[in-house]
Amino acid sequence: MSAEYTVKVQWGDCDPARIVFYPKYLEWFDEASWALLDRLFKDRHALQERHGVVGFPIAEVSARFLRPSGHGQSIAFRSTVESWQEKRFTILHQGYRDGELLLEGREVRFMGRVHPQDPRRLQAIAVPAEIVEIFRSAGSK
Amino acid sequence: MSAEYTVKVQWGDCDPARIVFYPKYLEWFDEASWALLDRLFKDRHALQERHGVVGFPIAEVSARFLRPSGHGQSIAFRSTVESWQEKRFTILHQGYRDGELLLEGREVRFMGRVHPQDPRRLQAIAVPAEIVEIFRSAGSK
Amino acid sequence: MSAEYTVKVQWGDCDPARIVFYPKYLEWFDEASWALLDRLFKDRHALQERHGVVGFPIAEVSARFLRPSGHGQSIAFRSTVESWQEKRFTILHQGYRDGELLLEGREVRFMGRVHPQDPRRLQAIAVPAEIVEIFRSAGSK
Amino acid sequence: MSAEYTVKVQWGDCDPARIVFYPKYLEWFDEASWALLDRLFKDRHALQERHGVVGFPIAEVSARFLRPSGHGQSIAFRSTVESWQEKRFTILHQGYRDGELLLEGREVRFMGRVHPQDPRRLQAIAVPAEIVEIFRSAGSK
Repeated sequence: MSAEYTVKVQWGDCDPARIVFYPKYLEWFDEASWALLDRLFKDRHALQERHGVVGFPIAEVSARFLRPSGHGQSIAFRSTVESWQEKRFTILHQGYRDGELLLEGREVRFMGRVHPQDPRRLQAIAVPAEIVEIFRSAGSK
Repeated sequence: MSAEYTVKVQWGDCDPARIVFYPKYLEWFDEASWALLDRLFKDRHALQERHGVVGFPIAEVSARFLRPSGHGQSIAFRSTVESWQEKRFTILHQGYRDGELLLEGREVRFMGRVHPQDPRRLQAIAVPAEIVEIFRSAGSK
Repeated sequence: MSAEYTVKVQWGDCDPARIVFYPKYLEWFDEASWALLDRLFKDRHALQERHGVVGFPIAEVSARFLRPSGHGQSIAFRSTVESWQEKRFTILHQGYRDGELLLEGREVRFMGRVHPQDPRRLQAIAVPAEIVEIFRSAGSK
Repeated sequence: MSAEYTVKVQWGDCDPARIVFYPKYLEWFDEASWALLDRLFKDRHALQERHGVVGFPIAEVSARFLRPSGHGQSIAFRSTVESWQEKRFTILHQGYRDGELLLEGREVRFMGRVHPQDPRRLQAIAVPAEIVEIFRSAGSK
């Protein structure tokens, strides 16, 4: 399963070169990840109650920019959980317009629960089996 | 007393017209207000302990833009508590370069304590006499 | 005629107080103004050819914040040209959720053509009669 | 030679988790790159006249986040041209506080000149020998 998240490039998203200022793409990655994770985990309260998971902090990000976009153009992001390891999972984001790939990137995130020693920090937990199952069945669709 | 807060306009602060995208000025107002309030209230823990004040939420903002600024230019903001009323106070921000006024604006803020009925909201309190005194003596310098 | 522009508050729009960081509202004003002006002036090339107008720079902005918004909530902005003077016009933006007014603000803008002496600056022109007519008939709807 | 670029984390840079919203780090990478490139190429007009280079568009970016930062904390970025290939060069950014590495990332950029067929696009050129020399001698310091 992939989630789709579409943005329309705004005037303030662009820099003096008249194209999207690149950190803005990463904001859209974050927004697309929320859209995807909200869809995968419809019941976030259950996530918190069963596994203590209160968020999905970022560990790594990368992106390749193939074609620029300018004011008024739309970008459709297709986002999917590409892979997972013991304590991490990777979301692939691909941005398209008219079927053409404009950029793609990956976010590596972990499942964070409140750190038992320091309530202001998050601690990574092993991805629970129940969630691996959600990732797996999402991938098969 | 006024606090000074200087920024250098970055590439990403500018829009395709090659000038600062105006909402960015309001971000700088907010940053300049933190600089001013940190200077006026050196001991924020005391503010919280004595008056329950945990923040200074914004109620109103206004700005006039006189001259644009572009990438690489500096803006020196001079900020001061201009006036106060029972439950509000007004911060005046003026942005200069080489002695020329580029823009000015006002933020109306209140002193917020955690709402007794709803811990997620803030409630305005009357500006405490002790703080009126700080505002007054700051003004006289 | 008023244009409607709806946003969904994103995680990155919010600050540590868990509410929208206020300069973000002004970004949405700017976006709502583009939506309104694109609707009023369907043919921007004509605007440029007939009147030399290449943009609508901001001269003043003001806003009042009545209720905060947090991550995941929607805000529907209703925007309209409220008034105009010889060289300026005022756009009123009102943000609602479930019929409740959350904030409102005004942007004063001018019609900018390339300055004859300095191609990097814009010069305000008197609002052309043809455009006054558009404003007037938009208001009557 | 490495350039140093220091930022102080602002309230509006942080999200409801009370830490820097991660796309903000990429904005700082961009700002740090400008600081570095301004230092390497003191005479950008010469760059443009001799090689037609009008900018350094981004091709790829990556980052690893090791420790979060919150409001009021400082981050010192150390940035350097790490490597170059025929048409690309890589800038390494490392963010520190009190000697501890907080995050690091790489931007792959190219030297862009105005595309001969389309004045709105930039075309990558081979890194000129003169600039390879600048990169090389910067690295040796």
